[in-house]
Amino acid sequence: MNKRLLLTGLAIALGAGLSQAAFSQVKPEILVKQRQAAMTLQGKYFGPLAGMAQGKVPYNADTVALNSALLDALSRMPWDGFAPASKDAQVKTAALPAIWSEPAKFQEAQENFHKAIEGLVAVSRGSDEAAQKAAIGAVGKACGGCHQNFREKQ
Amino acid sequence: MNKRLLLTGLAIALGAGLSQAAFSQVKPEILVKQRQAAMTLQGKYFGPLAGMAQGKVPYNADTVALNSALLDALSRMPWDGFAPASKDAQVKTAALPAIWSEPAKFQEAQENFHKAIEGLVAVSRGSDEAAQKAAIGAVGKACGGCHQNFREKQ
Repeated sequence: MNKRLLLTGLAIALGAGLSQAAFSQVKPEILVKQRQAAMTLQGKYFGPLAGMAQGKVPYNADTVALNSALLDALSRMPWDGFAPASKDAQVKTAALPAIWSEPAKFQEAQENFHKAIEGLVAVSRGSDEAAQKAAIGAVGKACGGCHQNFREKQ
Repeated sequence: MNKRLLLTGLAIALGAGLSQAAFSQVKPEILVKQRQAAMTLQGKYFGPLAGMAQGKVPYNADTVALNSALLDALSRMPWDGFAPASKDAQVKTAALPAIWSEPAKFQEAQENFHKAIEGLVAVSRGSDEAAQKAAIGAVGKACGGCHQNFREKQ
């Protein structure tokens, strides 16, 4: 696939921003399903990296490169699923009310996560295994930092 | 985030390929959950594009650019979830047995989809609305072409 155009597409889109209003007609249950799907896939692609950083899985530079790139895309996907309308969803969710009662703190947690992902992407090519493992650890910490306050204990 | 590195990361990873063996220890139910999550998110980001192509949603070039880029990443995510081990999953799934009894045909359907996504990504920047809508239509056709043979009627 054409990576150069993917790159440009993302850059354009980020410059323009994405309005939650575009999703205002999506049913609350669908918003929850979509954000949970994004979390599931973040787990799929972060899990092996966490395993490497913890020494439980053999280090593989190709997997670090691929999974980091996919996590870069996935990290953009959950947040509009926490639109206020999603509070009314009649489905099981571990999302805590603090998401909506402390929006600035929730936003800050997202930004910490994005910074950590950016750090991982920056070292994900090449072969600086120590730097990659440190960046993976920082992503894990950012995941946990958000879950600590905004997700039910599991 | 650093798009140049994302680009390179994907290129490296694609060059190296990704072995399903890496996922061989994942539980069948998790494989199903992960592949369904990828389908859910493909729906999230393709839905608005399909709406534009059908004239049901106002055309928005930024949304075409962003969603196409995210679909490029998502289009890589479902397939290892159809590993043979996933046949034993004790969960609801619309996957048909033909996925495993006709692997060459399933593979061909995936390749058709990837070609269609590649075509969409190629026109997703810029403002050739007609070309974008045609490319969106081709993606929709590729989705349907696979669902026709490999997913339960819904």
